Amino acid sequence: MQKTILDERQLDALLAEIFPQVATDFRVERLTKDGIVLRLCVGEKHLRPGGTVSGPSIFALADCAMYLALMSRIGAEALTVTTNCSIDFMRKPEAGRDLLCELRLLKLGRVLAVGDGLVFSEAEAAPVARASLTYSIPPKRSA
Amino acid sequence: MQKTILDERQLDALLAEIFPQVATDFRVERLTKDGIVLRLCVGEKHLRPGGTVSGPSIFALADCAMYLALMSRIGAEALTVTTNCSIDFMRKPEAGRDLLCELRLLKLGRVLAVGDGLVFSEAEAAPVARASLTYSIPPKRSA
Amino acid sequence: MQKTILDERQLDALLAEIFPQVATDFRVERLTKDGIVLRLCVGEKHLRPGGTVSGPSIFALADCAMYLALMSRIGAEALTVTTNCSIDFMRKPEAGRDLLCELRLLKLGRVLAVGDGLVFSEAEAAPVARASLTYSIPPKRSA
Amino acid sequence: MQKTILDERQLDALLAEIFPQVATDFRVERLTKDGIVLRLCVGEKHLRPGGTVSGPSIFALADCAMYLALMSRIGAEALTVTTNCSIDFMRKPEAGRDLLCELRLLKLGRVLAVGDGLVFSEAEAAPVARASLTYSIPPKRSA
Repeated sequence: MQKTILDERQLDALLAEIFPQVATDFRVERLTKDGIVLRLCVGEKHLRPGGTVSGPSIFALADCAMYLALMSRIGAEALTVTTNCSIDFMRKPEAGRDLLCELRLLKLGRVLAVGDGLVFSEAEAAPVARASLTYSIPPKRSA
Repeated sequence: MQKTILDERQLDALLAEIFPQVATDFRVERLTKDGIVLRLCVGEKHLRPGGTVSGPSIFALADCAMYLALMSRIGAEALTVTTNCSIDFMRKPEAGRDLLCELRLLKLGRVLAVGDGLVFSEAEAAPVARASLTYSIPPKRSA
Repeated sequence: MQKTILDERQLDALLAEIFPQVATDFRVERLTKDGIVLRLCVGEKHLRPGGTVSGPSIFALADCAMYLALMSRIGAEALTVTTNCSIDFMRKPEAGRDLLCELRLLKLGRVLAVGDGLVFSEAEAAPVARASLTYSIPPKRSA
Repeated sequence: MQKTILDERQLDALLAEIFPQVATDFRVERLTKDGIVLRLCVGEKHLRPGGTVSGPSIFALADCAMYLALMSRIGAEALTVTTNCSIDFMRKPEAGRDLLCELRLLKLGRVLAVGDGLVFSEAEAAPVARASLTYSIPPKRSA
């Protein structure tokens, strides 16, 4: 896998710049050898009755993890877009816990990148969800 | 496909009761012979820079359409949960337009239901996204 | 959707030329306004115990339908490849019946094409499976 | 994850009994702590022009790996069926090499099991494909 060219704090800053509405929801825990660990700081707006985290919030976490993992390797390409996500919801998240997505990049091609991730309630061993994502990478602008 | 047992306004009311945080985001346009048309009333919170609707908002629309289509046929089973969604993002939504999801139920089994939907910017012919979803239906409580 | 530039018999011939091992398994029923109907001529090799058609055979049908629908619109681009398929198996196929896949192209972009299809046992109304597929289209060779 | 109750050779035997048409295509390499490694013994029938392994053959490998991983933990339940598979094809397999699928079970519930796998050309580090699969488990027959 390619070397990282943005670190954790640069990725947090990038998110704040590009997606200010959601930047405080997420925090980069750490870059890994082939991906990233991203935290969803669970708040009222992410919850469903019973204290469980909503499906769209879990989707957003996996999608954002893929985006940031990609940015960490190719640099800030804001036009990079999700083309596909397949997500399996497997267990109910624990009430009152943040979620962590451990995402790995499986392919970083010229036009497509593919990754997959597991989502966990913090400190739990059994995953809440798994997701695989494809991103389309825009062609390089020639100078 | 089974007959509907809840109508459009009953579904809006069900949504308001079960998911009060998001109920005003969605509005049932109409039930169809095999599914539903659901509107996402696009507001500031659904947007990304450039005025486009966010991926998680489109996911939420498809997921909610499947949920309500299912409820319309089997009645209010709040414990019914999404187990899988595969979604393809195909085009950028038009800025400043609501989105409509046309969802059809393809299978309504004893334990699993499957549906798929196309998402359109209002008054556009080319779909913004497609999604297929599986829901798990809890066993009937015996009296 | 773009006009077709290859007709049914040209597509059958293309299949025979490019994929001789499987060409006799499939037969183009007809091109439709936004896609194709493809037949799987079910034989011994496609069956599982009980006479049902195997999952990989159903996958192959959907994949081939997408390929031919694409070829019918962009011409013979043998290098076009499947990048993603999400498939839901919903009902057991009828024993001793051919399968038909009704595939529609949803997007035909410069680098990616997306389609989805329903698979039916011949003369049945309830679908056996649904599939959505993404193909990557190679860049045009400059002369 | 549950303990295994069938070993490698019992799984090979089970495959030969239930799916005789394809049993010689596959060989269980080893059971792992949370899944299985399954080999596709690549032969002429799996190939496409250029010597690459066909998409349906890769799908069959992932599907069979999930099936056998499940059987290894719950015992021979022939009625267990695939309900969903999402598969990403990422790289061209190497010509003339077997493929290996490393599959892990992520959930083994009462009615649904979920797993995902990476597929590699033997002795290559970069995966050819990834797949996630859901199986439906039939209710236990009461005696």
